[in-house]
Amino acid sequence: MPKLDLESIPQRNATGYPAAFANVVQGRWYRRLSVAAGLEDFGVSHVVLKPGAWSAQRHWHEIEDEFLVMVSGTATLVDDHGETPLAAGDCVAFPKNDGNGHCVINNSALDCTFVVVGQNKNGVCHYPDIDLHLPDGNTFTRKDGRRY
Amino acid sequence: MPKLDLESIPQRNATGYPAAFANVVQGRWYRRLSVAAGLEDFGVSHVVLKPGAWSAQRHWHEIEDEFLVMVSGTATLVDDHGETPLAAGDCVAFPKNDGNGHCVINNSALDCTFVVVGQNKNGVCHYPDIDLHLPDGNTFTRKDGRRY
Repeated sequence: MPKLDLESIPQRNATGYPAAFANVVQGRWYRRLSVAAGLEDFGVSHVVLKPGAWSAQRHWHEIEDEFLVMVSGTATLVDDHGETPLAAGDCVAFPKNDGNGHCVINNSALDCTFVVVGQNKNGVCHYPDIDLHLPDGNTFTRKDGRRY
Repeated sequence: MPKLDLESIPQRNATGYPAAFANVVQGRWYRRLSVAAGLEDFGVSHVVLKPGAWSAQRHWHEIEDEFLVMVSGTATLVDDHGETPLAAGDCVAFPKNDGNGHCVINNSALDCTFVVVGQNKNGVCHYPDIDLHLPDGNTFTRKDGRRY
């Protein structure tokens, strides 16, 4: 069936972040919709942020576009422009290589939900606020290249 | 700014359908968000369906995945399985080459809104219900190959 039964799709809060940076995403519960539905052209995830949870550490990708649409609740976009409130229906685009680190934080008292689209191209990801780097899309390192 | 100012993005109801098949999409008002935001990896459109409007003639693509998330209002998914109601938060996936023609129809008395993701690969598109074919992603023909 084209309409996805979200409840039947596994929901995970796993992260590859080193332990020092993992706490903020413990309340990020995601479903890999593209995998469940057999889509190959792009990746789609359905994400629930519990109160206090972050979508990710603030970051930007060199070779991967990202797009996010808020589905329910409210959240705060944090990027180089500061803080921007988000509510259901808001659309947010993160063009590749724009150098503008971004993340979405649920500062509300209720869950919020968004759908995010991207492509895993194993490209470089930058984390401007912390000693973290992703040189190949897979293995996190410190900024000087040492592995965690 | 990553958060898109939707009101500032042009909204169009143009269609390339031959006149005989264009009426149902006259109330389909779309914004090309990926173009406005400079995204290249995939296409994203923000679509408002006025009451009675269809997302498209019922169709399926040979080489292009599609994904849709309902943002507001209600609609009806029509495909080979019949009719399926859709409401805000529902996610719908159309894997390439599944042979299951689909469209979304706003049968309600109010506008509905969705975001749809795809990629224009200039591939073949099939229209099972009408004498329409898209052999190259650009120019519509009859099923026997004659151009309109």
